[in-house]
Amino acid sequence: MKKTATLLISCPDQKGISAAIANFLLTYNANIVHSDQHQDNTENLFLMRVEWDLSDFTLDMCAFAAAFQPIADKFSMVWRVALSGERPRMAIFVSRYDHCFADLLHRYHSGELHCEIPLVISNHEDCRALADFYGVPFHVIEVTRENKQEAERKQRDLLEAANVDLIVLARYMQVLSHEFTAAYPHRIINIHHSFLPAFDGAKPYHRAFARGVKLIGATSHYVTEVLDDGPIIEQDVTRISHREDVEDLIQHGRDLEKIVLSRAVRWHLDNRVLVYSNKTVIFS
Amino acid sequence: MKKTATLLISCPDQKGISAAIANFLLTYNANIVHSDQHQDNTENLFLMRVEWDLSDFTLDMCAFAAAFQPIADKFSMVWRVALSGERPRMAIFVSRYDHCFADLLHRYHSGELHCEIPLVISNHEDCRALADFYGVPFHVIEVTRENKQEAERKQRDLLEAANVDLIVLARYMQVLSHEFTAAYPHRIINIHHSFLPAFDGAKPYHRAFARGVKLIGATSHYVTEVLDDGPIIEQDVTRISHREDVEDLIQHGRDLEKIVLSRAVRWHLDNRVLVYSNKTVIFS
Amino acid sequence: MKKTATLLISCPDQKGISAAIANFLLTYNANIVHSDQHQDNTENLFLMRVEWDLSDFTLDMCAFAAAFQPIADKFSMVWRVALSGERPRMAIFVSRYDHCFADLLHRYHSGELHCEIPLVISNHEDCRALADFYGVPFHVIEVTRENKQEAERKQRDLLEAANVDLIVLARYMQVLSHEFTAAYPHRIINIHHSFLPAFDGAKPYHRAFARGVKLIGATSHYVTEVLDDGPIIEQDVTRISHREDVEDLIQHGRDLEKIVLSRAVRWHLDNRVLVYSNKTVIFS
Amino acid sequence: MKKTATLLISCPDQKGISAAIANFLLTYNANIVHSDQHQDNTENLFLMRVEWDLSDFTLDMCAFAAAFQPIADKFSMVWRVALSGERPRMAIFVSRYDHCFADLLHRYHSGELHCEIPLVISNHEDCRALADFYGVPFHVIEVTRENKQEAERKQRDLLEAANVDLIVLARYMQVLSHEFTAAYPHRIINIHHSFLPAFDGAKPYHRAFARGVKLIGATSHYVTEVLDDGPIIEQDVTRISHREDVEDLIQHGRDLEKIVLSRAVRWHLDNRVLVYSNKTVIFS
Repeated sequence: MKKTATLLISCPDQKGISAAIANFLLTYNANIVHSDQHQDNTENLFLMRVEWDLSDFTLDMCAFAAAFQPIADKFSMVWRVALSGERPRMAIFVSRYDHCFADLLHRYHSGELHCEIPLVISNHEDCRALADFYGVPFHVIEVTRENKQEAERKQRDLLEAANVDLIVLARYMQVLSHEFTAAYPHRIINIHHSFLPAFDGAKPYHRAFARGVKLIGATSHYVTEVLDDGPIIEQDVTRISHREDVEDLIQHGRDLEKIVLSRAVRWHLDNRVLVYSNKTVIFS
Repeated sequence: MKKTATLLISCPDQKGISAAIANFLLTYNANIVHSDQHQDNTENLFLMRVEWDLSDFTLDMCAFAAAFQPIADKFSMVWRVALSGERPRMAIFVSRYDHCFADLLHRYHSGELHCEIPLVISNHEDCRALADFYGVPFHVIEVTRENKQEAERKQRDLLEAANVDLIVLARYMQVLSHEFTAAYPHRIINIHHSFLPAFDGAKPYHRAFARGVKLIGATSHYVTEVLDDGPIIEQDVTRISHREDVEDLIQHGRDLEKIVLSRAVRWHLDNRVLVYSNKTVIFS
Repeated sequence: MKKTATLLISCPDQKGISAAIANFLLTYNANIVHSDQHQDNTENLFLMRVEWDLSDFTLDMCAFAAAFQPIADKFSMVWRVALSGERPRMAIFVSRYDHCFADLLHRYHSGELHCEIPLVISNHEDCRALADFYGVPFHVIEVTRENKQEAERKQRDLLEAANVDLIVLARYMQVLSHEFTAAYPHRIINIHHSFLPAFDGAKPYHRAFARGVKLIGATSHYVTEVLDDGPIIEQDVTRISHREDVEDLIQHGRDLEKIVLSRAVRWHLDNRVLVYSNKTVIFS
Repeated sequence: MKKTATLLISCPDQKGISAAIANFLLTYNANIVHSDQHQDNTENLFLMRVEWDLSDFTLDMCAFAAAFQPIADKFSMVWRVALSGERPRMAIFVSRYDHCFADLLHRYHSGELHCEIPLVISNHEDCRALADFYGVPFHVIEVTRENKQEAERKQRDLLEAANVDLIVLARYMQVLSHEFTAAYPHRIINIHHSFLPAFDGAKPYHRAFARGVKLIGATSHYVTEVLDDGPIIEQDVTRISHREDVEDLIQHGRDLEKIVLSRAVRWHLDNRVLVYSNKTVIFS
């Protein structure tokens, strides 16, 4: 696989941004392999993802920031660059339901997820065997109403020691504190088992059943201070019938949850997600 | 097309219901063409739809009620029977958006909807030409905050004079009073332009855009006293992207609304819908 | 979970079948929990699935066949009865691609598939660790052009020794001989990585890419003598874009294959599938 | 609505194309509102769509070709530019089935399709009333096995007289000759009532029913010399059940056909479609 660099940019829209970036990349002989830009007229924002092959690129990527900063300053850009060779470090939080966890580990094992998984944190022992099978360190930190603050401190110590870039809540059944979520802005991905904003909060399948909906959904989103309200990364739905009771919905939902969470994780790891105004742009 | 009769039943579940119905139909030499039953364990309900060919049926359908009532009494059934030869009388309410209206009229014209349309009621003149083209009487009754009660009285006079069985709100932009909806229980079908219960109430596309959802939806439901809360008949969704603004959502949504409303109307007219506990069973 | 019995019936359609079955079940005090019947008018066939709670059932299931046979004879029924307590014995065949295999094993482990898995047969060692983790016996039988007949004999010996009811080809990359498939009629389920009948045969993703389709699919079907031509159990599709190359299609396809194969296997195990005229009825 | 220009480009991929285009547009003070590019690695092609606001653009669009040609030459571009103010001239061909025709006319009437419809050509009188209602000239040219060549000459005369840019076959039941299709390369859009390449040719719903598929589809594509083999613009599918016979499939299919054809027409008219290697890129 070719080594590539990916640049993600958002800034106020104005004339000349595309040309400035294209010229900058051409100066250093970049071979662009993907480029996609989007103008949000409501917010007057310019959003861009550009990926180029590094083989002929004449700028040392260590010097990239210094070279690019004048352009970034000129257009007031928020930007970051990622190298395909670098593998982000992803932690998984899991409780007892293991379907999303098993799914993510199998994708990781088969090379579909471009990351390292230095640790898994759980409040239960149940998933240890799966973690062991896939060779991923597994830490149990019990969480109770009383010890929550202390438990989170232990979790954060482990995350910091492991230098984690991304946290995935794979059906982790504890609500994180504001302090915790604030420490990882747009770097915690959750899977909620409903089509948000419908049925946010607890027991969405039971409430979907009670309401008599004809489709159930799942939503992956970045975690923010407000429960189930963060920027949505991906959603999908599946049709149900009157023959299906809550248990059937839960079973169907598991397949949805796996698909929707894994897409979000993959897109995040492939630097395809840009967040603005509590929304996401997914560059395809 | 063969003449058939369709029996819809709901009653507390117990042993012997299927046998009682099957034996009753066999007694009169019915040739069953469709039969579907469902037990709702949560509510302990038996729900059934059975349709039979009338060609060899030896019971005069005028005498059906008297003959069937003893069975219905024994099992405390709520039931009704419909003949394929009878065409329910359907009124359409419409305001200015004409996409659902044009869609329903074209389906009616092409024979897809098994009904008569004795009248259309609107609070605007805009849709008159379409109604005229398809040969459907069109009545304009202006509705203002002040005259609402009187306007509804006029509407109901027209509906009663036309002996209407079903009212379809094809993007009719006025909220009906409780008195009105109570007069047509499970006989008013509305199309709401969101995936209920998300974005109930006003401006669902704008709110979907603001929330950054990845799918938009539409929901057809029976109208009850509580706004956008009646039994859901059908829902569907379509994927949107970050490139699409509110106007694009509205345009995509029109296609969803047409499909979802027309399915609900067709199923209702084909006697496929059974309502219980603010839910529907759709017999396929 | 309640113990239930499920009866699957197909026979020429005529009057009185429903009544005969309902009366038979009532005689022995059956409490019907699901009942679904279908008339295929083209073939003049009556098809039915009925499931009842065994708790009050007064007929010993060992005596069921003898008691029911007169009715079956009268209506020329093809029928079988299955008990929820009996777990069918399912073999999995797999080659190197392990996504469907891992998915099935996880579902089996979590109790979603009501079966035993007495053995896995592969022509490669690759999947052994997964089989070991889930505690399923794993047999490698190498298959070459030369030894194919002998290899199949070994496979069939293993299957017969294990008393296997169902064989699932979870991306098994060898074509089975006619003798083999004839020995397990409607008891071998395959997953084909296209929307059949499009792209039957080899390399469907490459051919889908070359043709420029906008959706890719997967199909699970019973294996018959004619390659990729057996009765279809389930199909699904996913949207792709021009940005995606063959490798992306293969990756997306894996998720489809898992879902589509696992649905087919579950429905088969839950006795929801009836085959006739190279088609299936899926009782929901 | 703002006036915009849209440039569509395809050429061999090499360094510097993006910069050349961005600089060219910046020179004349273009305000880019959408830009999307795609590299097809298999074919080593660069494909781009860029749309800009004309309000501040300092180059007279009459002089655009002359100004841009040197860049086009340098990179061996195939290109075209379209102005939002110009409305392409679209002819519709229809036979007896009028669902797609009624759908297109209603969309045209409501302003969803950015085109003029100077004429409709049919081989039957059936659709005249609809054409009249929407104020579109309707020409009947009977087609028989004997007069086909002459009929096509009449059709082409009408098309040329009306200066038509695009022809839409809205369930037109005659196969066009090679001469005819060659005269409008990538400018004739057909709707085929199957998920191509499955069930190309005649009676696709009957064959889908016979094969027992679980989903039916529709495909819109550009017409080429080879029947049902041209570049696919859009496809979609809908789920069917064993309860549905061929007539039901045909009815469901109508909704699919309308959606799939109207999307293709809209994308073509909005200059979102680029054809290469018998495929399409749809710029979203």
